[in-house]
Amino acid sequence: MNSLKKVYERLQNGQLIQKIWEARKQIKPFISSTPLLHSLSLSEKLDSNVYLKLENLQNIGSFKVRGAANKIIHLSEEEKKCGVTTFSTGNHGLAVAYIAQKLGIQSTICISNRVPKAKVEALQKSGAQIEMIGDSQDDAEKYCYELEEKFGMTVVKPFDDPDVIAGQGTIGLEILEEIPDLEAMLVPLSGGGLLAGTALALKSINPSIQVIGVSMDRSPVMYESIKAGEPVVLREQSTLADSLLGGIGLDNEYTFKIIKENVDDFILVSEEEIAEGMGFMMDGHRMVVEGAAAVGIAAVLNKKLSKTYRKVGTIVTGCNVDLSVVTHVLQNYLQKNR
Amino acid sequence: MNSLKKVYERLQNGQLIQKIWEARKQIKPFISSTPLLHSLSLSEKLDSNVYLKLENLQNIGSFKVRGAANKIIHLSEEEKKCGVTTFSTGNHGLAVAYIAQKLGIQSTICISNRVPKAKVEALQKSGAQIEMIGDSQDDAEKYCYELEEKFGMTVVKPFDDPDVIAGQGTIGLEILEEIPDLEAMLVPLSGGGLLAGTALALKSINPSIQVIGVSMDRSPVMYESIKAGEPVVLREQSTLADSLLGGIGLDNEYTFKIIKENVDDFILVSEEEIAEGMGFMMDGHRMVVEGAAAVGIAAVLNKKLSKTYRKVGTIVTGCNVDLSVVTHVLQNYLQKNR
Repeated sequence: MNSLKKVYERLQNGQLIQKIWEARKQIKPFISSTPLLHSLSLSEKLDSNVYLKLENLQNIGSFKVRGAANKIIHLSEEEKKCGVTTFSTGNHGLAVAYIAQKLGIQSTICISNRVPKAKVEALQKSGAQIEMIGDSQDDAEKYCYELEEKFGMTVVKPFDDPDVIAGQGTIGLEILEEIPDLEAMLVPLSGGGLLAGTALALKSINPSIQVIGVSMDRSPVMYESIKAGEPVVLREQSTLADSLLGGIGLDNEYTFKIIKENVDDFILVSEEEIAEGMGFMMDGHRMVVEGAAAVGIAAVLNKKLSKTYRKVGTIVTGCNVDLSVVTHVLQNYLQKNR
Repeated sequence: MNSLKKVYERLQNGQLIQKIWEARKQIKPFISSTPLLHSLSLSEKLDSNVYLKLENLQNIGSFKVRGAANKIIHLSEEEKKCGVTTFSTGNHGLAVAYIAQKLGIQSTICISNRVPKAKVEALQKSGAQIEMIGDSQDDAEKYCYELEEKFGMTVVKPFDDPDVIAGQGTIGLEILEEIPDLEAMLVPLSGGGLLAGTALALKSINPSIQVIGVSMDRSPVMYESIKAGEPVVLREQSTLADSLLGGIGLDNEYTFKIIKENVDDFILVSEEEIAEGMGFMMDGHRMVVEGAAAVGIAAVLNKKLSKTYRKVGTIVTGCNVDLSVVTHVLQNYLQKNR
């Protein structure tokens, strides 16, 4: 409770938690209220009750639409006229394009050439202008700020922004509405917008809920930054959880601190474990999810939680994945499990 | 309206429609309120608004739980003590086992040896006793009635029962709650429980909604029976839509008549079209659905509707399909579409 109090203080008396409640009301027209599934098959495996918040069924196939909506609806009329821009591994870009189109605002999405084909195609369909720049999100990010300077566009950051964090945090409220006695929450972790928002929402209601960030073991930037005590830079490696790639920014303002003070534990999962999680979602629940969305499930399947909880939740964050990857994962899964 | 009036009369002043409304309230504790998805990609293809009622996300992965719940909760205490039994290509059996277990009632499921492996495994997990009998549903059905005679078990028929029809009909009410100006509804058709219930629900609220049954072109028994003017028997052929296999019964009491008088049109789809529908659900919506659940989507994709409607719905009925079938369908789909 002490650490939360500090966050409250720094953020001017719980301003950010209030923002989550405001967001919950304001983003309603733009989002789906996604189901929370009690997974019988995962519950059996863990000998515990496991709940899956199905953001893979969210509009545009990912939770990112929550944060993007909450950011863009709060722009001034002046800012809306100049349009928005962002850099993204895909889902955030798609979310910004989707919300901009709904609101009749121009959007320009800057992405790196590492972004999978399925995501590029989806972005092209979204009505946004696409700029493909360089090998990493960092290159795309730089170009974004050039657009801001030249044309007055607003850069919609993927995670390190209070409105975005508050938008993602609405998931925490939705989960507690259904499972008020939740004991632990596993949250996929990259830049930390989802984890920071969810942690604040959950801890503000029940500080004893264990909030655990889950990343792939290939370049887990936030995890290494927390260990180092400050934001660090890692070289990106290819991973099935490509939506979790990208740095947290050396000038990180919000997510690093919120996570440092509010998150109880971290879990890393291997590529093999992520593939197992994806296969399990097809086998157990007949849903195709992206690698990033399967990291919490991978942690459960591989019994990586340090304690036994009566009720554990995780967020299945999205479903934007190349079908060729899906075929490959599925074939391997069937070979191993039949 | 005239034909509906006749149904009203025969069923004692709309008793069956009232039953649907009662079912809606009474089965709530046993079912999920599934999402109705506005499919952007299907809507683009048809130049119309296409809505998918996602019963693949229903408890136990199929709409069948609605009818089973509505039948079993209406049994007397005496009947509940003797247990229930059923014959089924899988989903109905699973639904009966699931509801029986929830209510602490014994269930025995009789299935033919043509039922796919995934469904047999799921049934075995459900806590029901499984009896595998003969080559067709007819053999399984006969054995069921032997159990009724010997042990006083109640046979929960898969479709030709007013309580089951009323349970399935609740889907019609849920769809109209969200899309009151629906113009046409495509309903997967086998024995006709779902089609009869949905047609009654929709037509009782707006008789001008076009209700269309969709079957595979391999042994479409109800379609041929309606054409012949009476129930007929066809030899079963293997199909991707295996949940739609089975006869309608030469002594059919309810579904044949209700469908004859309330359904406006029928569409048949080929195996290739069903596979395309399954592939599309993975490609467009990242959901794995069974062949039977894809027949409405197959009809839309292949522009088989005789008219253009502004708002068309279909029911994605279930997701119980072998993953080996899924892999095969997905590989073919990717080869054709990339």
